[in-house]
Amino acid sequence: MTIIDLCEHDPMREIDLLHHIYGASTDLPSRVRLGPGDDMALLDLDDRRLLVAVDQVIEGRHYAPETTPIELVGRKAIMRSVSDVAAMAAVPIAALATAALPPNFGRERSERLFDAMRVAAAEADCPLIGGDIALLDDAGHPLVCTVTVLASPVGRAITRGGAVVGDAVYVTGALGGSVTGVEPAHHLTFQARIAEALDLAARLGDHLHAMIDISDGLGRDAAHIARASDASIEIDVDRIPARAGIPWRRAAGEGEDYELLFTAAGDVPATIGDEVPVTRVGRVIDHPGGDAPRVVMRDGERGEAGDELGWQHES
Amino acid sequence: MTIIDLCEHDPMREIDLLHHIYGASTDLPSRVRLGPGDDMALLDLDDRRLLVAVDQVIEGRHYAPETTPIELVGRKAIMRSVSDVAAMAAVPIAALATAALPPNFGRERSERLFDAMRVAAAEADCPLIGGDIALLDDAGHPLVCTVTVLASPVGRAITRGGAVVGDAVYVTGALGGSVTGVEPAHHLTFQARIAEALDLAARLGDHLHAMIDISDGLGRDAAHIARASDASIEIDVDRIPARAGIPWRRAAGEGEDYELLFTAAGDVPATIGDEVPVTRVGRVIDHPGGDAPRVVMRDGERGEAGDELGWQHES
Repeated sequence: MTIIDLCEHDPMREIDLLHHIYGASTDLPSRVRLGPGDDMALLDLDDRRLLVAVDQVIEGRHYAPETTPIELVGRKAIMRSVSDVAAMAAVPIAALATAALPPNFGRERSERLFDAMRVAAAEADCPLIGGDIALLDDAGHPLVCTVTVLASPVGRAITRGGAVVGDAVYVTGALGGSVTGVEPAHHLTFQARIAEALDLAARLGDHLHAMIDISDGLGRDAAHIARASDASIEIDVDRIPARAGIPWRRAAGEGEDYELLFTAAGDVPATIGDEVPVTRVGRVIDHPGGDAPRVVMRDGERGEAGDELGWQHES
Repeated sequence: MTIIDLCEHDPMREIDLLHHIYGASTDLPSRVRLGPGDDMALLDLDDRRLLVAVDQVIEGRHYAPETTPIELVGRKAIMRSVSDVAAMAAVPIAALATAALPPNFGRERSERLFDAMRVAAAEADCPLIGGDIALLDDAGHPLVCTVTVLASPVGRAITRGGAVVGDAVYVTGALGGSVTGVEPAHHLTFQARIAEALDLAARLGDHLHAMIDISDGLGRDAAHIARASDASIEIDVDRIPARAGIPWRRAAGEGEDYELLFTAAGDVPATIGDEVPVTRVGRVIDHPGGDAPRVVMRDGERGEAGDELGWQHES
C-alpha cells in the first residue's frame, strides 16, 4: 500500500504563502463580506448572500495513483469542496471542475473522471455546471483537478472566527486512519457532513460559534479556529474519538477526516443528523496578552503535550 | 523566442471530451439556466441571476516559462477568465484562484504570482476573494493556475447559441500575432473587453444575438457559435482585421486574441467603447438539412477555403 504522508509536503510554507495573501487582501469592495482565509468567501449581492470556494486534488498529494480508482479521485475532488460548504453550515448550489490531464491519461479514463465528478456532484445536490479541461504534453505531470463550489448560507454562515472563551470544542464522527486505513480509505469515500452541519445550525442557533471541516488534522484545524478567533484551544487527548487502534497523535495529526470541528456554548446533542456522534474534545481558553493564540494538547496524567506535530507553527 | 504552438496540443481531443461532458449533463436542476458548454454557466437564484466560469493557465501551454515574467502569468490567468465575463456581456463580481506550484518555484515568486493576480483582479473590479495553494514535490511539474469568476448578467446574458440566419458576424480590434508577436505578446497584456461588451449590449439591445471571446482563434470560435446556434457561418477572409504583416490564416487560426466575436442584426457602430474598431467579417447562413453546422472561410477570387485549419472538425 502506498502511504501518502501529507506532512512531507511542508504545509507550513503553504500557510506562510496563504498568510501573505490574506494580509494583502485589504481594500476589498463592500460586497465582499468575508475574503480569503475561511472555508469559503462570502459575498453580499443585494438581497442575497453567496458563498464560494475552490479546492484542489492532486495526484500523489491527495491520492496514490497506483491504488486509487479514478472514480474515487473524481468523487474526492467534489466531496472535498462540498465539505467546505458543510463547514459553513450552508446549502450547496453548484460546482465547476477543472482538470489538467497528463499526456498518457487517455480519453476513456478522462471520461470516467468527469462522470464520477458529475455523479458525486449530483448526489450532493451540487450539480456540475461547468469547467475546463487541458490535455498536457509533459510526461510526468501529475493530474491536477480543481472544484469550485457555490453555496447559500442558511441564516448566518458559520466561520472559523466566532469561537468565544468558555466555548466547548466538539468533533463529529471518528478521527484517524483516514488516509492510511483500510482500502478504499476514508479520505476517498467520506460523505461531506452537509446534513449534520445544517442540523447542528438549526438546533444550536446562535450558540454555534465557529466551525471548520477537518482536512489538515484536528490539531492544525483547531489552530485555524484559534487564530481566526484570537483565542487558544485546549484539547483533552483522552477524549479524541480515535478510530480503533489509532493512537491520539495520529488521530489528531493525520487529517483528511472531513469531520466537523466546532465550538459552541450551552448544550450540544450527543448525536446529530442520522445518528452521527458528537464528542466534546476540549475548550476555548484565553491566551496571555501578547502571546499568539495556540492549541494545547492536554494529556491527563502527563501534563501538556504539544509542539511535536508542529501545530503551534500555525497558531 | 519560444513559440507556443497551441495546435500541438490537439484541441480536438479536448473538444471531444468536453462534448462527452456536455452530452452527459442532462437532468440539471431548474436553477441551472445554462449548463456546461458556453463561456459561463448561468444560475437562477430566486430573484438573482449569476454567471460563473473557471479557466486554467498552464506553464508551457499558455505561456513560455523562459520568457514570461511571473507577473504577466498572474495577470493573464485573471484576464482570461474576465474575458469570459466580457463574452457574456456581464459585470464581474469576484474571482478565486488556485495554483499548483512546482517544488522549485520559491516563495518570493509565488507571492509575486498571487500579488499580480490580486492587482489584475482589483483593476478589473473583480476582487480576488479566495483560492487554494498546493506546493508539489514532483520536479518537472508545470505550474497550473486556475481562476474562477463570478459575474452578473446585464439584462440577458449573451450566449453562443443565439445566432440567427441572416445575422452579420463582427469582431473587435485586430487579430493574429497575439502569441508570437512582439514581446510582451498580446496574449499576456490584453485588456478583457468588458467595457466594450457592455457598450455593445446597451447599444444593440435585442439585436445582439450571440457572442464569444476569441481564445481558440476566429475560425474555431466561430465554429463554437455555429454549433451552439445550429447554423453555419461564412467568413470573408479579406475582411479579417489582421495585424500588419499577418496573413489571414494566422489571424484566423492562431488564437489568444481575446477580442469579441459576435453576431447581430441591424446596424452596428464602427467603434465601441473607447474607439475600439468593430469589423464585419462574415454572416450567418443556413446549412443544408442533415449536415452539421460549419464555418466556411471564403476567399474572394479563389472560392472556398476551409478544412486546412481543422475548424470543421469542431462544427
